[in-house]
Amino acid sequence: MSDQLIIFDTTLRDGEQSPGASMTREEKLRIARQLERMRVDVIEAGFAAASNGDFEAVQAIAQTIRESTICSLARANENDIRRAGEAITPAARGRIHTFIATSPIHMEKKLRMQPDQVVEQAVKAIGWARRFTDDVEFSAEDAGRSEIDFLCRIFDAVIQAGAKTINVPDTVGYNVPEQFARTIRTLIERVPNADRVVWSVHCHNDLGLAVANSLAAVMAGARQVECTVNGLGERAGNASLEEVVMAVRTRRDVFGCDTRIDTTQIVPASKLVSGITGFPVQPNKAIVGANAFAHESGIHQDGVLKHRETYEIMRAEDVGWTANKLVLGKHSGRNAFRSRLQELGIVIGSEEQLNHAFTRFKALADKKHEIFDEDLQALVSDETSPHELEHFRLLASRFHSETGEVPQASLTLAIGSEEKNASSSGSGPVDAAFKAIEQLAESGTQLLLYSVNAITTGTDAQGEVTVRLAKDGKVVNGQGADTDIIVASAKAYLNALNKLHAKFDKLNPQI
Amino acid sequence: MSDQLIIFDTTLRDGEQSPGASMTREEKLRIARQLERMRVDVIEAGFAAASNGDFEAVQAIAQTIRESTICSLARANENDIRRAGEAITPAARGRIHTFIATSPIHMEKKLRMQPDQVVEQAVKAIGWARRFTDDVEFSAEDAGRSEIDFLCRIFDAVIQAGAKTINVPDTVGYNVPEQFARTIRTLIERVPNADRVVWSVHCHNDLGLAVANSLAAVMAGARQVECTVNGLGERAGNASLEEVVMAVRTRRDVFGCDTRIDTTQIVPASKLVSGITGFPVQPNKAIVGANAFAHESGIHQDGVLKHRETYEIMRAEDVGWTANKLVLGKHSGRNAFRSRLQELGIVIGSEEQLNHAFTRFKALADKKHEIFDEDLQALVSDETSPHELEHFRLLASRFHSETGEVPQASLTLAIGSEEKNASSSGSGPVDAAFKAIEQLAESGTQLLLYSVNAITTGTDAQGEVTVRLAKDGKVVNGQGADTDIIVASAKAYLNALNKLHAKFDKLNPQI
Repeated sequence: MSDQLIIFDTTLRDGEQSPGASMTREEKLRIARQLERMRVDVIEAGFAAASNGDFEAVQAIAQTIRESTICSLARANENDIRRAGEAITPAARGRIHTFIATSPIHMEKKLRMQPDQVVEQAVKAIGWARRFTDDVEFSAEDAGRSEIDFLCRIFDAVIQAGAKTINVPDTVGYNVPEQFARTIRTLIERVPNADRVVWSVHCHNDLGLAVANSLAAVMAGARQVECTVNGLGERAGNASLEEVVMAVRTRRDVFGCDTRIDTTQIVPASKLVSGITGFPVQPNKAIVGANAFAHESGIHQDGVLKHRETYEIMRAEDVGWTANKLVLGKHSGRNAFRSRLQELGIVIGSEEQLNHAFTRFKALADKKHEIFDEDLQALVSDETSPHELEHFRLLASRFHSETGEVPQASLTLAIGSEEKNASSSGSGPVDAAFKAIEQLAESGTQLLLYSVNAITTGTDAQGEVTVRLAKDGKVVNGQGADTDIIVASAKAYLNALNKLHAKFDKLNPQI
Repeated sequence: MSDQLIIFDTTLRDGEQSPGASMTREEKLRIARQLERMRVDVIEAGFAAASNGDFEAVQAIAQTIRESTICSLARANENDIRRAGEAITPAARGRIHTFIATSPIHMEKKLRMQPDQVVEQAVKAIGWARRFTDDVEFSAEDAGRSEIDFLCRIFDAVIQAGAKTINVPDTVGYNVPEQFARTIRTLIERVPNADRVVWSVHCHNDLGLAVANSLAAVMAGARQVECTVNGLGERAGNASLEEVVMAVRTRRDVFGCDTRIDTTQIVPASKLVSGITGFPVQPNKAIVGANAFAHESGIHQDGVLKHRETYEIMRAEDVGWTANKLVLGKHSGRNAFRSRLQELGIVIGSEEQLNHAFTRFKALADKKHEIFDEDLQALVSDETSPHELEHFRLLASRFHSETGEVPQASLTLAIGSEEKNASSSGSGPVDAAFKAIEQLAESGTQLLLYSVNAITTGTDAQGEVTVRLAKDGKVVNGQGADTDIIVASAKAYLNALNKLHAKFDKLNPQI
């Protein structure tokens, strides 16, 4: 059995399906570049048939990324597979990942197909996909609740049809490790030519067992794990890439395999995904939580000091926890700025965009003593979003609050090509700002979530505000960063409105 | 084998050891009442010998809680055990939990004791503990890296000495499920009289496997799991109570046991612990994350609509996800306010405190249209903290920020019995407020973390700000809630300063 475990990252597909985690094409490209830098083997870049926006995002990633295989998901129908195949055409290595449901409940209630028809459709799908690439993956949706005999039958058929990777998803997160391992072991034993394909798993975290189920499958012979950065994904998410990778690396003695991942890129990837989606990472999250390597004082710290190994099984620096690097200050020049962006893997399209970003950098450096990598990430987050999507923009603002008085906000917005003013009071200055925006935008949205995190430490840090808005069943997250929290809040609200304004309808497949 | 799985909650002991999660006695009492309401079997209320504050907290919980067993941790020495025994004396049912390290590395590097001495000390500890209670639990610290022969020997000895529960901790989170289950199975097979005690596990989450290891142990015969709400705990935390409970409940078919937990109290417990510690719960956290039961639209939602069971393995209402209950408004009277507090399990000591809380409620209702349970929790959070600890208090404030000008803050503080004013500019109004406070407090602390979450939805929601400050190796979290985010920030900063001002030194044991 191979001693390489293939890491298949689906942050951009299953992760993006988290309510409120939808990303722009530029945001997906930034994450894809970080995944490539981390040496992820396969990047599932999206579901090309979901919408034109999804198609373009997969295609742009396929054009840009050279070191990782680029994959698009597709239902087992000719149109989905054609869209997937076209989107991955520019890739150095492209994969089509097609799926169909195999559990009795899904075949009956959702597909309304007989088992024979499902097998036939799956075999046809592999054939369609092979017109575009030899690298075809097949998933049996809801395999965790499917009958083992039927799984053996359909996997035998798709392997004969040319599938190279067989994925076994636990779509609803219902499995427990011992049982899931038994399923994988049985499949590998019983399916003819099982040794000619890579066995893969895709686990959901509804009972908190996605990583454990994935690892149990690896011990049973699976050699691809589908996972996401920070465990992002629908409901309770997918298996966390960082936990799977570090468990296998730290316990190579029991797993007998390893990944190609550059683990020092794990924490930067976590921060990037958290920043773009606005999904915070809880402090007690394994590997990437702020406290994961923090030791409280007392008996324990005494143990750490006496002998490092007493309490540490991994080193913080191995997963990319390093002190914030002070990179730039107010006297830094344009070249230093540009080269730091390049080191961070941030590509700015035109000289004009670079000039604009540099102007904003200088303005930030006037307000904030030290500029960290995270500040630059936040700065260019705004910069790389296409201006045509910015229907609403903040031009100027004024806020006042005082004990015993009602807080006030006055804003000047650009709306399309017009400039408009509005003033409002509110229960606080943020409420007043949002009400002033709504006087002009009249969006009729509902505010679902408001949160702020400081981007770096220190009282002069920029606040990064996330605002989640809902309208007619659509949910979007907006982000805004500024040293002034009220300004950041207004920017975040406008960013969310811009996304609602631009958003296409799309389908979210479920495996 | 018993079909009852004992849930031992250590949120107040191991959870509180998370850097920045320390709680006041009143906060611990509120959490203990919620744990009792959730029908937790054993509450580890603290480590009585750590400090006078810890002793008093354990004692107060032992006096208050009637339905759960109250436990104090103690190292295996006479003084620790005496303090633990005294603290649990008022309990309806009290337990002493004593521990000593058993791994070669810990015995050699930390204890500097020979294995024979360690066994002797453990046996003595059980004897000391039995003077106070028959309910004695013994833990072998770092059992996950201990030699199996030595574990069998020491467990045999402490069972003979009268220990009733034998706990096997994976102190550094190094184990994987298959192997950990093997350890538990071997111990139960080899240790004489294994059937006369309850086997317990205590898993840490460094590789993301705490819940999986705990469940693997249950399948191997363990009948107590030590866990925490939200998986709080040092570094990457402990096993999540909610995940363990719901996995066992949902998959009774494979575990063959169940807990007594009232699962509808899980989400309220999660929110309470998150609110008090300031540790956010990530949206994709299993069971208690905001997205855990949220379904994105598209294929999947279609499946849910067609047949509920297609994608749902648990129901949101089973774990206490219900809509915010609108409880009170500006016309609500004093009796409605008091009885809602009682329903929430919030006990306000004196009529004077109730009057004060009611005045603040009325002030909030003037600013905020609808008052939810979460608002009341936040309101009384301040109210129940003893006034003698409030060295710094905010009396009045004024903030101004405007495009092109430097943000300004002016504050009036009560410091001890004095009233003082300060003004400052800053990179934003929050920075200006913190700088104004520091002009007066001169604390020399470092700001490690700043975050804001809206307590409920809607733009007029209160913001709950968490500020984490460090000074001389101590880390504290401060909280403040207000409809004005800048006021909430100033309150949170002052709350953290008050905690630093009052904080006792204490030890944090590690098992």
